[in-house]
Amino acid sequence: MSSYKYLKEEAFEANMEIPMRKLAIYTWGNVSAFDKDKGVFAIKPSGVPYDTMKPDDIVVMDLDGNKVEGKLNPSSDTPTHIELYRRFENIGGITHTHSPYATSWAQACRSIPLFGTTHADHSANEVPCTPMITKEAVETAYEKETGILIAKTFLDPASVNALDCNGKLRKALVPAENPMVLVAGHGPFAWGSNATKSVYNAAVLEEVAKMAWITLSVNPSAKTLPEYVINKHYERKHGKNAYYGQGK
Amino acid sequence: MSSYKYLKEEAFEANMEIPMRKLAIYTWGNVSAFDKDKGVFAIKPSGVPYDTMKPDDIVVMDLDGNKVEGKLNPSSDTPTHIELYRRFENIGGITHTHSPYATSWAQACRSIPLFGTTHADHSANEVPCTPMITKEAVETAYEKETGILIAKTFLDPASVNALDCNGKLRKALVPAENPMVLVAGHGPFAWGSNATKSVYNAAVLEEVAKMAWITLSVNPSAKTLPEYVINKHYERKHGKNAYYGQGK
Amino acid sequence: MSSYKYLKEEAFEANMEIPMRKLAIYTWGNVSAFDKDKGVFAIKPSGVPYDTMKPDDIVVMDLDGNKVEGKLNPSSDTPTHIELYRRFENIGGITHTHSPYATSWAQACRSIPLFGTTHADHSANEVPCTPMITKEAVETAYEKETGILIAKTFLDPASVNALDCNGKLRKALVPAENPMVLVAGHGPFAWGSNATKSVYNAAVLEEVAKMAWITLSVNPSAKTLPEYVINKHYERKHGKNAYYGQGK
Amino acid sequence: MSSYKYLKEEAFEANMEIPMRKLAIYTWGNVSAFDKDKGVFAIKPSGVPYDTMKPDDIVVMDLDGNKVEGKLNPSSDTPTHIELYRRFENIGGITHTHSPYATSWAQACRSIPLFGTTHADHSANEVPCTPMITKEAVETAYEKETGILIAKTFLDPASVNALDCNGKLRKALVPAENPMVLVAGHGPFAWGSNATKSVYNAAVLEEVAKMAWITLSVNPSAKTLPEYVINKHYERKHGKNAYYGQGK
Repeated sequence: MSSYKYLKEEAFEANMEIPMRKLAIYTWGNVSAFDKDKGVFAIKPSGVPYDTMKPDDIVVMDLDGNKVEGKLNPSSDTPTHIELYRRFENIGGITHTHSPYATSWAQACRSIPLFGTTHADHSANEVPCTPMITKEAVETAYEKETGILIAKTFLDPASVNALDCNGKLRKALVPAENPMVLVAGHGPFAWGSNATKSVYNAAVLEEVAKMAWITLSVNPSAKTLPEYVINKHYERKHGKNAYYGQGK
Repeated sequence: MSSYKYLKEEAFEANMEIPMRKLAIYTWGNVSAFDKDKGVFAIKPSGVPYDTMKPDDIVVMDLDGNKVEGKLNPSSDTPTHIELYRRFENIGGITHTHSPYATSWAQACRSIPLFGTTHADHSANEVPCTPMITKEAVETAYEKETGILIAKTFLDPASVNALDCNGKLRKALVPAENPMVLVAGHGPFAWGSNATKSVYNAAVLEEVAKMAWITLSVNPSAKTLPEYVINKHYERKHGKNAYYGQGK
Repeated sequence: MSSYKYLKEEAFEANMEIPMRKLAIYTWGNVSAFDKDKGVFAIKPSGVPYDTMKPDDIVVMDLDGNKVEGKLNPSSDTPTHIELYRRFENIGGITHTHSPYATSWAQACRSIPLFGTTHADHSANEVPCTPMITKEAVETAYEKETGILIAKTFLDPASVNALDCNGKLRKALVPAENPMVLVAGHGPFAWGSNATKSVYNAAVLEEVAKMAWITLSVNPSAKTLPEYVINKHYERKHGKNAYYGQGK
Repeated sequence: MSSYKYLKEEAFEANMEIPMRKLAIYTWGNVSAFDKDKGVFAIKPSGVPYDTMKPDDIVVMDLDGNKVEGKLNPSSDTPTHIELYRRFENIGGITHTHSPYATSWAQACRSIPLFGTTHADHSANEVPCTPMITKEAVETAYEKETGILIAKTFLDPASVNALDCNGKLRKALVPAENPMVLVAGHGPFAWGSNATKSVYNAAVLEEVAKMAWITLSVNPSAKTLPEYVINKHYERKHGKNAYYGQGK
């Protein structure tokens, strides 16, 4: 009997949201669910199509990259997930997709400006695009270094010379409050307090990316939302005195 | 036994049109249905997903913001609905969505020019985008002030310095004849003689917003429809001698 | 017993393709089926939603605008259909939609250039956009004059000063071989040898309009297909020695 | 009893992916499945709608263009398939679609730059757009010459003066490693080791084409992915030491 059934089922359900919400086709994308107390996470197996995947195909890994349970190979992006669980506080799920609008911004190497309240409801900052990964990083440990690059873009932007939308050195961002990123030339990652919330944030990112593209197309000199509206929207949903929803 | 069953069911059915017509994802958006004689309206509860919402989850409110019936918290946009019901004559339903094309125009802070008969069939004027809400308004009573801003954009544009597509002071508009608006940096609201018609207008707005974007992309110097075509289309559907449809 | 059952059923089935192929929402759009020998056509009733429409709701009209059979009012676009059946040889069905990409080109007042073989398979010429209808025409008999404007754009372009993509006077076009048009500021009409083929051409037009928009976006100086490829594609499908399909 | 039942069923299943993945409407597009040992391939019949097509409608052809089995006419694009099976090593399936984004790039006569890892996972080079076919080629043997043009663009680019994204003479490409092409003014072809993989590559091409369009729209000066990331992605999926998926 598996002692990680709950975690594998959480990961399975969240992975199935990827095709249902059209965030990737075929086998692309992956979601993991993290149990912080046990130090393990459950993740999609590599290259398995969503329509044949079963909960028992989910692979359980520890943060050293050892397989704890499962017959299949874990997602090739597993080392990226590990670095994010190691470095980011208070996250319990990670989603990687190739959703077309977010991926297009990543390919354009552009952070997504905060143009509206749909975005502000989920993050009070632009969605950062990482700098391009270096040749050394790719050749030593590509997937692990991708995780490190994401982490540094948030926690220590100066160390990777991460620039914001205005070409200035990016300020550090709290990952749990800014749950979305674009990896330059690659695609989006999102996270959350659990796997379900991470895939929710991945779907939000896709919607925000689509809207930002059309916004710029309609008005190439569109401005970011004023700070006071951003804060209001973020706070009414996530702040101490949040009044959106039905409480906890 | 609820004495507002009819109103809650009308609101429920109209709210369910939001996911069915892809006007918002997850819990986003809300519709209300207004009973003018009783001075109450039924509205979506806050943060409840459409696929689990039941008619009995709908909340009944009065125009002073008191809950008349219901266990759940009403939509956080409730004060916006109240201001519109208080200030606009002859409206019986309001819909707010985050539909991507209309939201993009709102984020671009651009009114939607009247480019074609699809638009003219539903309003004889551009779809106005409000001015950006002020810091004071956000900090005192954000959602209520959003309603006031919409109302002033229609009824007293000079008071908020609302400009039209040509950068001139907007002329006042009759809300019941111009059932769609964009709130700058936020998204669309639509209304109608009842809840069903308000969500119909929200869907029309999304279609009109999509077409206007592509129109401008195909021809950046596209012109608005001549006045005589606008009037013909609006009048054949809504005028005294309307001849579209099967009569009343 | 109706003596037009076959015609009403043909019109009904073709009208139902409009929502199935997402060529219009709600009650928008209309298809008619023409019986040339009897001089009558069957058309969608005005303002009736597709999901409640029944074959018996279809209205049968003659070419003088008299109702031959049916309880409901015919589409308000009926006089446009009459003019096209009167003026165009060898057409047996007409479809009008508000499909978003074709409507956007119509709103942009731009003919659709013949950029590729998908287009050439169905017409050897650009899809013409009519000139803007005049004030006089709108005020005397709007829908009838819309039909006349379409007809003149094809049969006598000089009479309405219809210009082509290059700003030159358009050459006359054979309607049966060029089954698609854009009415400036309004939307698309398509026709065919029967109602089913007219709605097929309306769906093709939507696809062609979408592709032409993206083509121009990818390459603003995209050129039209060489004449020799256009002719080859049109002839292999529609010419004397056509070899596409399974023969007749 | 058919001795090609397995091949016809493979072709049938792969053809049915075209409408399921929205790679073409109506009867458009075609897939073939090749049995190299027997020197025959199974292909869609010409002009047959997907929703009525049965496995037994699939036509079996040899590489000289003789029909080996089947009652219907094969796809009019059959000679193109023949040339590709004759000239390209190690391909066992070919798919032709009119998918809108890839077709738009073909109509724009633009190769698709390699902007991101989604593309690099499937080819280490831009997706080439052929030169425009010549008048002579069209008039002698259009479909056969289309196949020859594709083959020369890959195997002997100098012979047809095929240029790359930078306007320089294209370098030769290994077809089995670069399974996607755009035919100028026409549309996409894709291939693979079998029919299923060819339609997979056609779906990938559509996704890549959509993303590349949006990438350029977001950032008109977007750069191609660095060589070291391209190679890493292609190799981790297709190289000698590939570690994506569950092994063979």
